[in-house]
Amino acid sequence: MTMAQDPQAVQAVMLDELLGAADTQGLTWEIKNPQGRAMPRISGIASLTNATPQSISFLSNPKFFGQLASTQAAAVLLPARALEHLPEQTPFLIVCCEDPYLLYSRLSQWFEKQRLARLSRTIHPTAVIHESAHLGQNVAIGPHVVVEENVSIASGVTIGPGCVIGRDCQIGSDSLLHARVTFYAGVSIGERCIIHSGAVLGADGFGFAPDATHEPGGWSKIVQFGGVVLGNDVEVGANTTIDRGALDDTIIGNDVKLDNLIMIGHNVQVGDHTAMAGCAGIAGSTIIGKRCTIAGAAMLAGHIRLADDVHISGATSVMSDITKPGRYTSVFPLAEHSLWQKNAAVLLQLAQLRRRIRDLEKS
Amino acid sequence: MTMAQDPQAVQAVMLDELLGAADTQGLTWEIKNPQGRAMPRISGIASLTNATPQSISFLSNPKFFGQLASTQAAAVLLPARALEHLPEQTPFLIVCCEDPYLLYSRLSQWFEKQRLARLSRTIHPTAVIHESAHLGQNVAIGPHVVVEENVSIASGVTIGPGCVIGRDCQIGSDSLLHARVTFYAGVSIGERCIIHSGAVLGADGFGFAPDATHEPGGWSKIVQFGGVVLGNDVEVGANTTIDRGALDDTIIGNDVKLDNLIMIGHNVQVGDHTAMAGCAGIAGSTIIGKRCTIAGAAMLAGHIRLADDVHISGATSVMSDITKPGRYTSVFPLAEHSLWQKNAAVLLQLAQLRRRIRDLEKS
Amino acid sequence: MTMAQDPQAVQAVMLDELLGAADTQGLTWEIKNPQGRAMPRISGIASLTNATPQSISFLSNPKFFGQLASTQAAAVLLPARALEHLPEQTPFLIVCCEDPYLLYSRLSQWFEKQRLARLSRTIHPTAVIHESAHLGQNVAIGPHVVVEENVSIASGVTIGPGCVIGRDCQIGSDSLLHARVTFYAGVSIGERCIIHSGAVLGADGFGFAPDATHEPGGWSKIVQFGGVVLGNDVEVGANTTIDRGALDDTIIGNDVKLDNLIMIGHNVQVGDHTAMAGCAGIAGSTIIGKRCTIAGAAMLAGHIRLADDVHISGATSVMSDITKPGRYTSVFPLAEHSLWQKNAAVLLQLAQLRRRIRDLEKS
Repeated sequence: MTMAQDPQAVQAVMLDELLGAADTQGLTWEIKNPQGRAMPRISGIASLTNATPQSISFLSNPKFFGQLASTQAAAVLLPARALEHLPEQTPFLIVCCEDPYLLYSRLSQWFEKQRLARLSRTIHPTAVIHESAHLGQNVAIGPHVVVEENVSIASGVTIGPGCVIGRDCQIGSDSLLHARVTFYAGVSIGERCIIHSGAVLGADGFGFAPDATHEPGGWSKIVQFGGVVLGNDVEVGANTTIDRGALDDTIIGNDVKLDNLIMIGHNVQVGDHTAMAGCAGIAGSTIIGKRCTIAGAAMLAGHIRLADDVHISGATSVMSDITKPGRYTSVFPLAEHSLWQKNAAVLLQLAQLRRRIRDLEKS
Repeated sequence: MTMAQDPQAVQAVMLDELLGAADTQGLTWEIKNPQGRAMPRISGIASLTNATPQSISFLSNPKFFGQLASTQAAAVLLPARALEHLPEQTPFLIVCCEDPYLLYSRLSQWFEKQRLARLSRTIHPTAVIHESAHLGQNVAIGPHVVVEENVSIASGVTIGPGCVIGRDCQIGSDSLLHARVTFYAGVSIGERCIIHSGAVLGADGFGFAPDATHEPGGWSKIVQFGGVVLGNDVEVGANTTIDRGALDDTIIGNDVKLDNLIMIGHNVQVGDHTAMAGCAGIAGSTIIGKRCTIAGAAMLAGHIRLADDVHISGATSVMSDITKPGRYTSVFPLAEHSLWQKNAAVLLQLAQLRRRIRDLEKS
Repeated sequence: MTMAQDPQAVQAVMLDELLGAADTQGLTWEIKNPQGRAMPRISGIASLTNATPQSISFLSNPKFFGQLASTQAAAVLLPARALEHLPEQTPFLIVCCEDPYLLYSRLSQWFEKQRLARLSRTIHPTAVIHESAHLGQNVAIGPHVVVEENVSIASGVTIGPGCVIGRDCQIGSDSLLHARVTFYAGVSIGERCIIHSGAVLGADGFGFAPDATHEPGGWSKIVQFGGVVLGNDVEVGANTTIDRGALDDTIIGNDVKLDNLIMIGHNVQVGDHTAMAGCAGIAGSTIIGKRCTIAGAAMLAGHIRLADDVHISGATSVMSDITKPGRYTSVFPLAEHSLWQKNAAVLLQLAQLRRRIRDLEKS
């Protein structure tokens, strides 16, 4: 069951009212209703294939123009270039706009806002909140939450069931922590952040000094005294971990988006608007510029620096600085296993092959 | 301490009773007791090396036939082909069967069933369960669990300590959630599923529209309205995450087995019987066929499709469709670091090397 | 806000007292105060750039000698070889020592000890502790913890909020479990271990027997009866998972250090002092020697064996035994995407290229 299909999810609203009420700042749009149909009532957003006569849908990718013919949607967000591909009479109203994907995003936020407004905002009696904690107005705290000493929670914050907020943390206004998030002591996040379940902010960075005084190969722990600081509008995915710094802080810029199961090492710095997909890993003290994208399962070594506007492909390993914007890749190309075996075997003789070519060239 | 070694774990049972009581449907087996020993009492399964005189053990791999000589086991599951390698007089009874590994699996389930039957099945008073939740018969709920509005929990379900079940979730009969599992709102799972600790089902898919209306490089969140649907007999490993769909659902087929720390992106579809090992990652909207295996740390790009019966090697990256069954690999072969350095350096000149070969061929 | 900058964090202490009180066993150090300044009061450790006049700092890497000129630190740990690079009059006292990084580590532990000593050590009334559990002296248990039957918790142990400790677990003295750790039944850890939030010890190993008796491609679960055993001084990172063994135990040696989001499969054995960085994955039954290092996102296949003193580079895949100490790597070298495309395309023809070279050599 999708939430969008839940008839209770939202009171249906007239299409024109919806577009007027949603945040469309910076966007232009126009309802096209050549057949003069009645303005439809919209109860949710849906994909073209699963839309109902109360759905609004959208289409950006020309690859899917074919799906328009059979959609049940009451209205579809479309770019102007799609209009010429439509039949004279469409069974839906058209909301013509420059960027249907972005307008869809804004509409989705409006529906979410309505949904959230109906949820009760209380502090559950099973939550254990230290008396020194400071809670702003309209804060909601779920069951079995723990809030330790000297925590500051700004207005409009939601803390889901089972979260643990360590001492001296600061949570900016309107931020949302889903169920079972952990903040160690000394974590600070900005406004409108979204932290997903299982995320751990502020665990110890991985720091040990080699210490052979007791036994060869021994380790001595470096206690991690730094904090974690997130800017505004940061999203942190499920089970992602962001370690606290050794002495200084680990710093995540504004509008940074982190997917699930990402590992951010201690003292990493991530620039504004940078996004990372699932399973990415950033080793300690690495500095990433602004507006970078790190695709899924990419890995960055420690103590390196990426310039602004660098794009790392999926499953790529970055082992040294990248100083120029651009896209970078390091993936062994996929092949059927038997072909892979042959090529991999030759790969191990590559330096030798080059020598043989050189010899041939000489003779 | 292994549970199997716990003398309290199970009341010892006669070997023939055990084999009669366990689910051996579809399997054939025969107890061989040429020396006419007394039927032994079995209290648990053990490896050949750690077996006690109350253990049953098994052996499939001919590589380990040598361990038979010294095992203390009372009985051993063996394939017929092993019998000729045995001495005249074995110190254990033989359970001859076609597939010892599968029979061992079935016996392990019988022991587990006995263990579970002895655990008390109560609803702990610290659990916070919304009055609208519907609980079937014989449901067990641990301490500090949270069950939100309109949740439906079928008969025989077990929910471990600290789980959080969001509103509108549905849990099929006899499913088991270990401690500290999170279901966001609108997650539906089938019967006999096992969900391990730290797993997060239904967190937001990673969807953002580029939005330069405020600042270059900005992002606008796509609220994720889809759900997560799991079939029957699905197992989800510890700290694995399965994101909710953007508009439609993320769908996991029947008998799918997911190991730990796996990331399943939004709107992914996984076919029946497909298994994935630890640290695998599947990016959004990818469709995986039936009976596939995805080995550890393999990564699939988004919006691609894998046919049925495709097998992906460990640490392999898949960046486009795979339409034929088979095994596929993309791993740089391991070498000592100094050799790797040489080969990697040449690799970056590979296109140039090909040109040099072409030139040589021409001249 | 870093904890070190918190004025309440620690009562300032004279430099010579600090060095006398910290554990400097096996280390030599000497305070150099050529200008006969007053012995400074130290309230914390800081990086050279963020140090205050109450900070002690350190420097090992000659690369950063330049930062000494502008630091505000009251004292700096320095190796003897750094002294010749200093001006006649330094604004700080010098603690000359052989290994500043190790001495810093020991001082960081002293500060942490002071901080911990000020925290109250109570058993929170919301913790649900089974009456059969045995708790040593001076045990601290946070809110919403669950401790099941027959658990043994030694003296000085700290269990953070929301942890779940399954039946028959054993926790050695002075170990620390941060918030929201899960131990399944039958997990045993040694003394002075540190387990970070979200870690899951003892979830089922990933074991299924192919079972076509119901449907082709089906799976039959192998119930996992083994335990998990950790030695002393083990650290386990946030959201790391260590699976229980199938029949025998999964075994982690003394002084093993595991970073975040690591997956340790069932029946793995890890030798003493081995360290693994974030996102590493070790498949089932693999045996790793002593004093190995496994860098971030490296992956080891199952059923293989690594000798002592093996070092695996980041993002490297190991698919077979490594019998000799040394460093091993398997990473496709990074390139700009367009160059990568060219080289990757040629890579798929590598076996064919070798043949062409052979042909050239023959003619």
